[in-house]
Amino acid sequence: MHHLKGKAVVAQGGGPTAVINQSLVGVVQEARKWPFITHVYGARYGVRGILNEDFLNLTLATPHNLAMVAATPSSALGSTRDKPDEEYCARMVAVFQKHEVRYFFYIGGNDSAETCRIVASYAREVAYDLQVIHVPKTIDNDLRVTDHCPGFGSAARFVTSAFACLDLDNFAIPGVFIGVVMGRNAGWLTASSVMARRDPKDGPHLIYVPEREFDTDRFLGDVQRVYDQHGRCVVALSEGIVDAKGQPVLMSLQGDAEVDPFGNVQLSGRGTLGDALSDQIKQRLKIKRVRCDTFGYLQRSFLGVVSDVDVTEARDVGETAVHFASSKEENGSVAIQRTGDYSVDYFLTPLETVAADIKPLPPEYLKAGHDIADSFRDYARPLIGTIPYFDRLIAPPVALER
Amino acid sequence: MHHLKGKAVVAQGGGPTAVINQSLVGVVQEARKWPFITHVYGARYGVRGILNEDFLNLTLATPHNLAMVAATPSSALGSTRDKPDEEYCARMVAVFQKHEVRYFFYIGGNDSAETCRIVASYAREVAYDLQVIHVPKTIDNDLRVTDHCPGFGSAARFVTSAFACLDLDNFAIPGVFIGVVMGRNAGWLTASSVMARRDPKDGPHLIYVPEREFDTDRFLGDVQRVYDQHGRCVVALSEGIVDAKGQPVLMSLQGDAEVDPFGNVQLSGRGTLGDALSDQIKQRLKIKRVRCDTFGYLQRSFLGVVSDVDVTEARDVGETAVHFASSKEENGSVAIQRTGDYSVDYFLTPLETVAADIKPLPPEYLKAGHDIADSFRDYARPLIGTIPYFDRLIAPPVALER
Repeated sequence: MHHLKGKAVVAQGGGPTAVINQSLVGVVQEARKWPFITHVYGARYGVRGILNEDFLNLTLATPHNLAMVAATPSSALGSTRDKPDEEYCARMVAVFQKHEVRYFFYIGGNDSAETCRIVASYAREVAYDLQVIHVPKTIDNDLRVTDHCPGFGSAARFVTSAFACLDLDNFAIPGVFIGVVMGRNAGWLTASSVMARRDPKDGPHLIYVPEREFDTDRFLGDVQRVYDQHGRCVVALSEGIVDAKGQPVLMSLQGDAEVDPFGNVQLSGRGTLGDALSDQIKQRLKIKRVRCDTFGYLQRSFLGVVSDVDVTEARDVGETAVHFASSKEENGSVAIQRTGDYSVDYFLTPLETVAADIKPLPPEYLKAGHDIADSFRDYARPLIGTIPYFDRLIAPPVALER
Repeated sequence: MHHLKGKAVVAQGGGPTAVINQSLVGVVQEARKWPFITHVYGARYGVRGILNEDFLNLTLATPHNLAMVAATPSSALGSTRDKPDEEYCARMVAVFQKHEVRYFFYIGGNDSAETCRIVASYAREVAYDLQVIHVPKTIDNDLRVTDHCPGFGSAARFVTSAFACLDLDNFAIPGVFIGVVMGRNAGWLTASSVMARRDPKDGPHLIYVPEREFDTDRFLGDVQRVYDQHGRCVVALSEGIVDAKGQPVLMSLQGDAEVDPFGNVQLSGRGTLGDALSDQIKQRLKIKRVRCDTFGYLQRSFLGVVSDVDVTEARDVGETAVHFASSKEENGSVAIQRTGDYSVDYFLTPLETVAADIKPLPPEYLKAGHDIADSFRDYARPLIGTIPYFDRLIAPPVALER
């Protein structure tokens, strides 16, 4: 097998996760082992660090520092929201040529995979030998091909734990509670709130995801029905819910929405969506105690809330990326295949099968307009790990004794 | 020593905490041991359950269920925001008389202590022998006399962990981030965000508490200065910050604020305060990436984020409340005294020393208008327990090698 001799560059793109540095350290430690990789450079702030030739020489990072960093949430190299076009990628390849970089490992989601695809395609065009491996990462769990994405399990663990405690809170002081969960285009993370429900009386009683059209009148009807039945109502709502026209519900509520370089409306980092829906409930249903929390950035990399499986797999995809670079000559994205209950295997899938487009929640996980099917629990359970036990107080009412 | 023979009633008031059921189970298990306590009743939904004679017979709760409940966050008996006046308390005493209740244990904050005080005073007036013990609980840590309050340590652990991860997130994708923390009248919980900062480059860079007048212009100046220095800025902000007139800053931003039975403006459960300040930063400082999360209900009883010390002490104050009832004849509130670094002792303090009024952050913990003194760290460190290690990536920049 022919191995290109040269440097490796690793970078992190998109939103941080709780375990993204496991993948980084997996790449760095494995890449340092192979004689054909002369140096391992880390690009600071994602692809922008490549354009700026802003590299850290990770060949010299100590094993102890790497061990500490692996356990630290949020992209240690820094990240970026830049969305490279052809010209941007051409400049990246020029930098790679200048520094004799032959291996590019990019840890990120579907946008990062798209960058990998363009870079690989441009390098081929100019006949520069470069191997590009995309290392999967996203709390949104919306990458195609792979069974699931590193980062999702820990975020889903946070969301499950959050709804368990918020449901207990709402049980103690009844009312309507809305928890707004991240997930611009796919409802995987919001769906994981269903794991907090042990029996039908537990919340979240209603779950809304972007895969289904959101109708405010129907929503208010759902809330009223649950409230009449249980005297309270806990709602899990994706920030990315869309109306009948396919427009984000937030957009119709917020005229001057901030738009990022990807053309995406800013959904996190403010409370508008949940507050507006809370107001609707107060005004139209005349329910007095209505509360809403937007989980925001806490959910994507909370210190100390990680899933063991997620930690392991995030390290594995980083290490495996280097193994594929050393054993195969093609570019690709590392993907996870479920081989048992619970075991996985890793394989390399072509970049274009992962790039750009996303994988929404499949219809079989959606149930009854406002709920998630039990089959989703079987899918998600091994990924989030064991949640601490909790229980309701069980004792006979005094009235029954009379 | 004369022991009144009769039933005990235990209730939970105010906002839930992560460890409030440790105190409940401490009371129940100890009370079941004493022959002069004939039954242990749990009032559902706080003092309202007493008026409604809505009791669970906790004499019959199983040890295993109690063990599970102790480890479960959020008031297992249910809580209430009712603020009993003299007449309400008179009706409570009438119910106690009817059921031959001689011991009342009320787990709560300063409002609950005030209820205890009125109930005890009314019982004395009508010459009904009743012993009233207040069991301290509040994430706000604002009870007088006691060194600290059960529930605070776990909430402070959440806030510390949250700012650690949010600072790492803000380091990865720089900008301004505002985290809004609970604490209507006292800044203890917001102050605990300082524990996330290991060196001066770490966030939170600015911390605002209700003990200090908040001025929007000065705030904007602080943010600009930090942003110029670090290229980013993380802010910890108490929901209860007040302006020069002593009015909640939120109130001037939100005309139709919801007011609870205590006359308090609703501060949690919506994002307005942080969103309004974010808009100010965007408009007046022209900083583009400004994000805000209001931590909301997650911070007060997050499943799986508890401090060991807090768990232990919450159980202790419940057990000790019953010990005081059996060894003393006076009413009172269980208080914690720090006896070493780190050890504590418990004592009974008169109800009127704890009731109604609160204990703000003392001036010696405030620093430089927008920061918290290191002495606060010494105070808070043992209460939050050990936070997981985390670290920055350390490697030489490639530029230095040329």
